[in-house]
Amino acid sequence: MLTQHTTHLELQTRGRGLVEITAQLRHWLASQGVTTGLLTVFVRHTSASLLIQENADPDVRADLERYFARLVPDGDPLFEHVAEGPDDMPAHVRCALLPTQLAIPVVQGALVLGTWQGVYLYEHRTRGHRREVVLHLMGA
Amino acid sequence: MLTQHTTHLELQTRGRGLVEITAQLRHWLASQGVTTGLLTVFVRHTSASLLIQENADPDVRADLERYFARLVPDGDPLFEHVAEGPDDMPAHVRCALLPTQLAIPVVQGALVLGTWQGVYLYEHRTRGHRREVVLHLMGA
Amino acid sequence: MLTQHTTHLELQTRGRGLVEITAQLRHWLASQGVTTGLLTVFVRHTSASLLIQENADPDVRADLERYFARLVPDGDPLFEHVAEGPDDMPAHVRCALLPTQLAIPVVQGALVLGTWQGVYLYEHRTRGHRREVVLHLMGA
Repeated sequence: MLTQHTTHLELQTRGRGLVEITAQLRHWLASQGVTTGLLTVFVRHTSASLLIQENADPDVRADLERYFARLVPDGDPLFEHVAEGPDDMPAHVRCALLPTQLAIPVVQGALVLGTWQGVYLYEHRTRGHRREVVLHLMGA
Repeated sequence: MLTQHTTHLELQTRGRGLVEITAQLRHWLASQGVTTGLLTVFVRHTSASLLIQENADPDVRADLERYFARLVPDGDPLFEHVAEGPDDMPAHVRCALLPTQLAIPVVQGALVLGTWQGVYLYEHRTRGHRREVVLHLMGA
Repeated sequence: MLTQHTTHLELQTRGRGLVEITAQLRHWLASQGVTTGLLTVFVRHTSASLLIQENADPDVRADLERYFARLVPDGDPLFEHVAEGPDDMPAHVRCALLPTQLAIPVVQGALVLGTWQGVYLYEHRTRGHRREVVLHLMGA
């Protein structure tokens, strides 16, 4: 019989960059008694994203941030929406280019993530923020 | 007992830009009697996207469009697929960079969108088009 | 009564580029006896993506690859993570910009893909790789 389970994570970021949440997802999943199902992860903000990325070499996350800092430069004169500073509109653009939501199948009681895949919250603002991530699990 | 509900929205766009559909999603959800569940939104086109974005300041949408117009320029000589004009291939590239589908958990009878999150259809062609968006809701 | 079905596809790519998997998804769906539901497609790698794109003119896929080769250049001196060669980090960046996972509603026994939408595996490495794609179907 299919059932549903929901919760949310509260995360305090320390400024721009990737924060791994894979262990928190696995920990919650383990307590729900679901063998087969679908886990949906949703971030309730327009200046932070979710991302599945390489979880082995920290250089990958540093390179990724350097790439996005160049692709969507802070203080770009193109932008008129600068109410909260030079990183305000770039954070919204990053949220268009990166996922707000992920859905990960559960098979044999585990997320089907590959060996090198980790799940991250990507903070786009230069200052740290309190972020809320909703988890929704449907399965049996 | 989990149930499923589907419908589709027909939207007439007025050319390139973002059209908010949050109210239409909420309106349909309210009539389905689902307290906990998952709403999937899917656009059936390769030249329009779906996007969750900041819903307060219209400057954000204007800045976002200016950013994408610069990132994926119309009439770029790189492109060979120009059958339908200078905005043809750029529309397909935008569809690679932006979501075709969104999944939004439903908790306590409401979409879990954050305060500043709205759901948009993003028309990428310069002329208006008739667009179809499929909604699929699973829950209880 | 809602049921779940899972399987996985093993795909051998022949280097960078798009491989259509729509027919394989439809073939598997047809054997599951599901009329209404949700198909989730998930790629278990950090150097290959999934993408819904135009399925008619092969020029679109060639233009798309040219665009991404310019947007995320191989051998970019920005990158420090070069362990596996000049296409290593660019593959991770492409995986940030393109989907790892797709969810496609099923209505009247068929995927709700539009006329011009095909589902593709996008190999980002210059050499071919063996790739695994997980399918999860929930429906009735």
